[in-house]
Amino acid sequence: MSPPTAIDIEAVTDTQAIVLPDPLTVNGVTSRRAKAGKLVAGTAAFTSSDFFKSPTSGKPKAKRWDHYLSLESKSRQPSSLKGAAQYLKNPGLISLGGGLPCAENFPIEELTVKVPSPPHFSERDTKESGRVLSAGKYDVSNGHSAYDLSIALNYGLGTGSAQMIRFVTEHTEIVCSPPYDDWQCSLTVGSTSALDQTYRIFCERGDYVLSEEYTFASAVETALPLGIRFAGVKIDEQGLLPESMDEILSNWNPEERGGARKPRVLYTVPSGQNPTGATQGTARRQAIYKVAQKHDIYIIEDEPYYFLQMQPYTGPNAAPVPPPANNEEFLKALIPTYLSMDVDGRVMRMDSFSKVIAPGTRVGWITASEQIVERFVRHNECSNQNPSGISQLVLYKMLDESWGHRGYLEWLIHLRLEYTRRRDVILAACEKYLPKEIVSWNPPAAGMFLWMKLDHTLHPLNGKVSLTELEEKIFLAAVDKGVLMSRGSWFTAERVNYVPHELFFRATFAAATEERMTEAIERFGTAVKESFGLVVNGDGNGA
Amino acid sequence: MSPPTAIDIEAVTDTQAIVLPDPLTVNGVTSRRAKAGKLVAGTAAFTSSDFFKSPTSGKPKAKRWDHYLSLESKSRQPSSLKGAAQYLKNPGLISLGGGLPCAENFPIEELTVKVPSPPHFSERDTKESGRVLSAGKYDVSNGHSAYDLSIALNYGLGTGSAQMIRFVTEHTEIVCSPPYDDWQCSLTVGSTSALDQTYRIFCERGDYVLSEEYTFASAVETALPLGIRFAGVKIDEQGLLPESMDEILSNWNPEERGGARKPRVLYTVPSGQNPTGATQGTARRQAIYKVAQKHDIYIIEDEPYYFLQMQPYTGPNAAPVPPPANNEEFLKALIPTYLSMDVDGRVMRMDSFSKVIAPGTRVGWITASEQIVERFVRHNECSNQNPSGISQLVLYKMLDESWGHRGYLEWLIHLRLEYTRRRDVILAACEKYLPKEIVSWNPPAAGMFLWMKLDHTLHPLNGKVSLTELEEKIFLAAVDKGVLMSRGSWFTAERVNYVPHELFFRATFAAATEERMTEAIERFGTAVKESFGLVVNGDGNGA
Repeated sequence: MSPPTAIDIEAVTDTQAIVLPDPLTVNGVTSRRAKAGKLVAGTAAFTSSDFFKSPTSGKPKAKRWDHYLSLESKSRQPSSLKGAAQYLKNPGLISLGGGLPCAENFPIEELTVKVPSPPHFSERDTKESGRVLSAGKYDVSNGHSAYDLSIALNYGLGTGSAQMIRFVTEHTEIVCSPPYDDWQCSLTVGSTSALDQTYRIFCERGDYVLSEEYTFASAVETALPLGIRFAGVKIDEQGLLPESMDEILSNWNPEERGGARKPRVLYTVPSGQNPTGATQGTARRQAIYKVAQKHDIYIIEDEPYYFLQMQPYTGPNAAPVPPPANNEEFLKALIPTYLSMDVDGRVMRMDSFSKVIAPGTRVGWITASEQIVERFVRHNECSNQNPSGISQLVLYKMLDESWGHRGYLEWLIHLRLEYTRRRDVILAACEKYLPKEIVSWNPPAAGMFLWMKLDHTLHPLNGKVSLTELEEKIFLAAVDKGVLMSRGSWFTAERVNYVPHELFFRATFAAATEERMTEAIERFGTAVKESFGLVVNGDGNGA
Repeated sequence: MSPPTAIDIEAVTDTQAIVLPDPLTVNGVTSRRAKAGKLVAGTAAFTSSDFFKSPTSGKPKAKRWDHYLSLESKSRQPSSLKGAAQYLKNPGLISLGGGLPCAENFPIEELTVKVPSPPHFSERDTKESGRVLSAGKYDVSNGHSAYDLSIALNYGLGTGSAQMIRFVTEHTEIVCSPPYDDWQCSLTVGSTSALDQTYRIFCERGDYVLSEEYTFASAVETALPLGIRFAGVKIDEQGLLPESMDEILSNWNPEERGGARKPRVLYTVPSGQNPTGATQGTARRQAIYKVAQKHDIYIIEDEPYYFLQMQPYTGPNAAPVPPPANNEEFLKALIPTYLSMDVDGRVMRMDSFSKVIAPGTRVGWITASEQIVERFVRHNECSNQNPSGISQLVLYKMLDESWGHRGYLEWLIHLRLEYTRRRDVILAACEKYLPKEIVSWNPPAAGMFLWMKLDHTLHPLNGKVSLTELEEKIFLAAVDKGVLMSRGSWFTAERVNYVPHELFFRATFAAATEERMTEAIERFGTAVKESFGLVVNGDGNGA
């Protein structure tokens, strides 16, 4: 339906002259772009991260994954119509080939968004000093922009637009600097969709995927209808335990797993894991990567909360740690990604704008080796095609044309401090209102979740009812007091015949206002105390 | 991830008083909405077409399709977290349950779009008299709108927003008035994605799907990796032949089809079919529906071009038929949809804004029985979730809040005349520049494609090279003359061991300007004449 038109980087007269520091910096992008010249990418332009990466000479190529590809994924062929795109480069050629509507029939003449001026990001500041960014229909042919409505409103290719691929490729290089040669990015319509597609690349019905024993419920529920089950790896306060992963893989017995072959894929949320809030440290990630190498495991690094890493928690009465003084300090404070240590090309990193800009954009991206990204893009072509062009245009205008990488990193620092503040509020409320003899928790270093363990052995009904029943009783008691928490059992990785042995609840500190969040924890504390018989009904405040 | 909050239709004090004409009219919507009161639907609000349909008392329920559901689709369960949404209705409840980010951290303060004022739709008119529509972050709580950025930028449910479900439900009722009770709509991220999901609802690896013998290439290419093949039904100038469909189904022999069971699904593009441009008349649709009933076939009615039905073609020198005088005349001039004759609930209609607003919105919708839409929505929840909220907001502002159904139908009339004009230009060029002894075509009544048959028996190489080689020679000769056409063989439904017996090319009249379209047909005429030996090289113009 949408044959690509030509893309060119104008005026690349002396590529030898592009000598970039390693890793790429914000300034490096600026000088690189200046040398590369204006981005020219029209309607449904072919694009690739290769156009926008630093030269990677000397780095090894990624491992091939042919032996892991599913029948479905192996069967994907490029579209025959798209093959005709090669002729579009012929000068003067008129195409009656692809069924692309004409831009004159798009009834949107102009689009504007009002966004913050970095570093003044608050809603109040934005009202006062925000910038209004405007996109017209023909800004590209008028020379006003590298992206416009005539392009964004038409069909695009499965990678997403060249304009946004450039931005996310540069951003990924700044943050992750992958240590192998042939890495690529593709836009996604969000990580849940990307995960669905990735299961279909690597798994067949009957397969197991490894993950933390408590994990993102949607990851499990996306897998189950495909006949893919989760095998839960034991966790501690830093999340996934490499020893447990090694043990499961070393002793995998198909007979105990309904005939399932040894897992080939690990799904993990390394930072601010959902639901446990755990963040894997650098050494932990390195150890897990080694286990993955030992058992030839492909790693899905799902990182929606990576930039919701917070300031160190100093406790209720200590002075806060000063925020990062600049982008360089900020980047250094981030725990290294799996992608940054991926010498083999065995990682697919999933990034998303959902938690750092807004979920309603429905735009994210993956980074993986060329082979895997190509399979992923073939699937995009036969499903969601690419994210909304309107979303892509809004993101481009704000992130690329207005803020630039520097402003975007400043925004991420702003978010870091926002989430730090919210986390500190919920932790202060927990310190004040929860009975510590029953409820324990680890201060999260990233993400939006607080994972609370309740000592069920102290409950009067312990041993008399199942843990699941006990969990439900406490959940309903909390609802009765006016607070909704998520039940730990909703997040179990292993769903078949799973018998819980501990009692957890998950609270988010992302959504409610600070006052209501504090009020909610007080209510939960009352519900817990009453349920455990610490106080009688109606006398639960300020215990 | 995104638990629903409550939705209510305020002030429904007297539902008995809602007596609507059948079918629903634009005025009927206005009075219905006035009686229903303000739409209240906040962040991730639960919604359903049931809230917005006319009372359907007396109509039969749709047939159940349990016996046709795939293993994958049958296995889909509602999310456990979403089950907790029931408690959100409790007054005063504070939710720490779902991980929805807080709107204050969405860095978009305001969004505006400039759109035409109906009925002044041209680009020039829009520049002069277009309306600027504005959406703020908190327009709903401020009482300025029923939809705003705080909702659109957050997570939504798998159906899409209540605001857009209302609009497409009403629109579908106005146009199709389905004759059974429990029909529903769900938004999609476009019909290619909807088709991928629908295959996964109804088909298993090894199945066949019926379609026109030349069909939308992406429909075939989306099916193939899932192990689903197409069986081509013979066609005439009105497209799919019911007799051929009946014959294929009546004589289905699994042994001749690699063990495949009898098809259960028909994929058809009834109006302006891609690539043939054929449009099924009313009687043809009724006959096909009867064959579907006889063999219990589920119909996928893919209708991207339904509203690109054009004015009757009167030939190069006759006066044009006057355009529809009003919306009622326009609606009457449209060929009835399969959905409008679907007494069984055996049709999934796929609509899309791609061809009638812009592909870059990545928003469409399906209409089908409650059972099938529920399965579809469960899949949405574990894949693309819902279309971009930014796209939904832009569409809502324009279609619902600004234009209304009346203005939207006027826009569709405008498009009808635009496409009529474009079609007439390409047909005039064909009359003038193509050698009629070789090339024949039917004037399309809908869509964006002209399907040209070349009489291969007149080619000097006929019988000496294969038809596929001949097609390639002519294709390359046309490229050489500076025009890109699509080759007929790219659209064959049956891809395995298929031997073409005729020679076709497809041209679109949607994309190029009128001058360039005419020039392109002239070039193609030259290439054909030269290839067939009617003229010698370089002497091909104005023959």
